[in-house]
Amino acid sequence: MTSSVISLARRALATTALALVATADASAQSAVRDPLPSWRDGPTKRAILALIRQSVRQGTPDLLPPAERVAVFDNDGTLWVEQPLYTQFAFAIDRLKEMAQRDPALAQRQPFKAAIEGDMRTVMGSGEKGLAEIVAVTHAGMSQEAFTGLVTQWLATARHPRFNRPYTQLIYQPMLEVMRLLRREGFAVWIVTGGGQEFVRAFSAATYDVALDRVVGSVGKTEFRLLPDGKSELFRLPAIDALDDGPGKPIGIGRFIGRRPAIAFGNSDGDIEMLQYTTTAPGRRLGLLVHHDDAAREFAYDRESHIGKLDRGLTMAPQAGWQVISMRNDWSRIFA
Amino acid sequence: MTSSVISLARRALATTALALVATADASAQSAVRDPLPSWRDGPTKRAILALIRQSVRQGTPDLLPPAERVAVFDNDGTLWVEQPLYTQFAFAIDRLKEMAQRDPALAQRQPFKAAIEGDMRTVMGSGEKGLAEIVAVTHAGMSQEAFTGLVTQWLATARHPRFNRPYTQLIYQPMLEVMRLLRREGFAVWIVTGGGQEFVRAFSAATYDVALDRVVGSVGKTEFRLLPDGKSELFRLPAIDALDDGPGKPIGIGRFIGRRPAIAFGNSDGDIEMLQYTTTAPGRRLGLLVHHDDAAREFAYDRESHIGKLDRGLTMAPQAGWQVISMRNDWSRIFA
Repeated sequence: MTSSVISLARRALATTALALVATADASAQSAVRDPLPSWRDGPTKRAILALIRQSVRQGTPDLLPPAERVAVFDNDGTLWVEQPLYTQFAFAIDRLKEMAQRDPALAQRQPFKAAIEGDMRTVMGSGEKGLAEIVAVTHAGMSQEAFTGLVTQWLATARHPRFNRPYTQLIYQPMLEVMRLLRREGFAVWIVTGGGQEFVRAFSAATYDVALDRVVGSVGKTEFRLLPDGKSELFRLPAIDALDDGPGKPIGIGRFIGRRPAIAFGNSDGDIEMLQYTTTAPGRRLGLLVHHDDAAREFAYDRESHIGKLDRGLTMAPQAGWQVISMRNDWSRIFA
Repeated sequence: MTSSVISLARRALATTALALVATADASAQSAVRDPLPSWRDGPTKRAILALIRQSVRQGTPDLLPPAERVAVFDNDGTLWVEQPLYTQFAFAIDRLKEMAQRDPALAQRQPFKAAIEGDMRTVMGSGEKGLAEIVAVTHAGMSQEAFTGLVTQWLATARHPRFNRPYTQLIYQPMLEVMRLLRREGFAVWIVTGGGQEFVRAFSAATYDVALDRVVGSVGKTEFRLLPDGKSELFRLPAIDALDDGPGKPIGIGRFIGRRPAIAFGNSDGDIEMLQYTTTAPGRRLGLLVHHDDAAREFAYDRESHIGKLDRGLTMAPQAGWQVISMRNDWSRIFA
């Protein structure tokens, strides 16, 4: 009986919603007609709309049951600006500066000295080991809650050096529209980021409407600790547990989502395996790469860039059937 | 405009649903009155209902926003039978027997020989190393999809030695009722199991109505592989990546869910840290332990058991404020 009450209520909702849509005014109707208003017409936009339509429309061979409607988005460079520095790295540098005020010896040791001085050549020259040291010093040694607090606080005040706006305002409007459309069509929208999972979780819900349990990212080891005051915490240790980049992305997808995505958005060579895992699966799938080719409105970089390098991916795209999104041509508007 | 259409439709749904509930017949009203019909009245049942009520009712100090309504359930011994052997271990033994038919040498090596002969004393005596070897041989060396296929096939035919029913029919009806009630009140219901994540995912949706991305469990390492035929797979390697037991449970919860549960159900000492992580968090929380004290209808075991040992947990429960669920006294019905 309870379930028939629910089903009656559901039908009532559906009828009401349809009636409201039918009598909605012209602007609403045009929104229904073009769910991606910041995308210019072209093969990329059409490919996205076709994939979604084929996945959800009854009677098409590629209809996906709701549980299999999975969409994945890389974050840096795919959903928000990643130049001139990954945002998380800007956070780490600001945090290093703050820590050096309390512990001046820190500012004398490499690679911290270089990072504090903005000498990115030396920082990058310190390799994976150096970067891992910076992450360990700035991201560990505290509880998850404390770390989330630090990130939230930083995001509220930090400004992007070129656009002079909070980083969370430098997100791509066309991607928000795609995420919204996908959700409306019953897709589960996930972020699969090479960045830190807890870093992205600190703003994913407010910024992208992506709940924190739908964020897959790189994670450090944590330890469960009982505290003397009777409370408990997950304490962040200075060691990487999983790197969610390159082949780590399909592994993360398997671990968190447990299904092949129907559609995957990336922008760098670190997203190649995620796109392969998506588009080599049975059935209709779509992989897309954002190409940063708009120096006037955002940035232009690809094969030679140290950050967000897109080289192999660009070469592989035609053969693999991946769509390359030209920010300059495909997006009538960049920022939300 | 679109969002106001949605909000109008939502209000229409709410009104309709309330009206339908108000005019529903007596049987529906009694279902509304007792959402846990397989639970006998008593402090345990009352504690569960009180926690849920306080979490969702407007105007109470412990009201949880929908995103924070998180419930976690251990699987073996909490949602289904774990005696005389963890189901996953029964699967491993059957698979060993099958493999030994193709490779008789396997049946001559320990600990495989003992497992095949049902000599559990020797198997257990082989310790963690021996158990890991059995898992490696039976659970790895194939793709995730192939493994899921094996588990699904096995579950369809295997029978529990005492009840002579498929394992997926040996699930606890009272727990299904709690899961259903929690979902109805807007809780996200997660399984947090020491068992293999992919093993449990193979039946979680059909058996518990828990989607596979809401299953947190122990995981082996996987490798992303491109295949010669142009397809790809996640290949299961013979190595543990994360053990989701004991302190691994809060770590898994942090990693997958990213929030403290409001309510946690376990049954063994392996669930202690999960309950601690839950009930030491700020606000009102509830931890519960299923006590297997019903030899007539199920099994009776606790402090001395090799499987599902509940010793420290029983001792800690009163002080920690955890509810101990007596299967014999609290559950009027055991199986679904």
